[in-house]
Amino acid sequence: MPTGVRIEASAEQLAAVTFNSDGLVAAIAQEIDTREVLMLAWMNAESLRRTLDEGRMVYWSRSRQELWRKGDTSGDRQFVREAYYDCDGDTLLFLVEQEGAGACHTGARTCFFRAFGADGGS
Amino acid sequence: MPTGVRIEASAEQLAAVTFNSDGLVAAIAQEIDTREVLMLAWMNAESLRRTLDEGRMVYWSRSRQELWRKGDTSGDRQFVREAYYDCDGDTLLFLVEQEGAGACHTGARTCFFRAFGADGGS
Repeated sequence: MPTGVRIEASAEQLAAVTFNSDGLVAAIAQEIDTREVLMLAWMNAESLRRTLDEGRMVYWSRSRQELWRKGDTSGDRQFVREAYYDCDGDTLLFLVEQEGAGACHTGARTCFFRAFGADGGS
Repeated sequence: MPTGVRIEASAEQLAAVTFNSDGLVAAIAQEIDTREVLMLAWMNAESLRRTLDEGRMVYWSRSRQELWRKGDTSGDRQFVREAYYDCDGDTLLFLVEQEGAGACHTGARTCFFRAFGADGGS
């Protein structure tokens, strides 16, 4: 079974995160083994705190306006291994182990399963 | 010298892209060889059109409120190889060849050079 790690972020690191006017920061999930980009969703301060604390991706659902512990319903949990914040502090990058079928609600491994161009995507 | 490819997106593919209330869509740039996530920035319809047409990453600068042809000033251009859109159409993923020192204005290869946790980042 996949396991996530608890990450002890320092106060200085957390202070570098910039939330937008909705109180949210963009969070990219990338598969740690294949390096495939799985999805982008949003976090508020509480979901970031829980994600680092639980070692599992916890987003903020903008449509439902509630915490979204990824995989609680679908079973396709994301276990955190490494976490980064960017130069502006307004985007986060998590290296995760994706459990189950995949990250996408369509059942695809990654949400980015459609390509622009003649190939048209998978 | 790196070269980008022109991508002929279909009308259906372009119609699947959803712009937010500011007319923007999130765009992730990922290095095609190392699969390193380099940065996240924003595109409006015009910058997306130019990116696909020129084979070079053209963002929308929210701070300057103008088109931002990545690398025109720094020399660190990003050449597009593959382009994807996600299940909701509100995030784009570009596989690019990064020219020069890197994607980040700090000189780092990737904007995600700081880690949460004891290691503290590079």
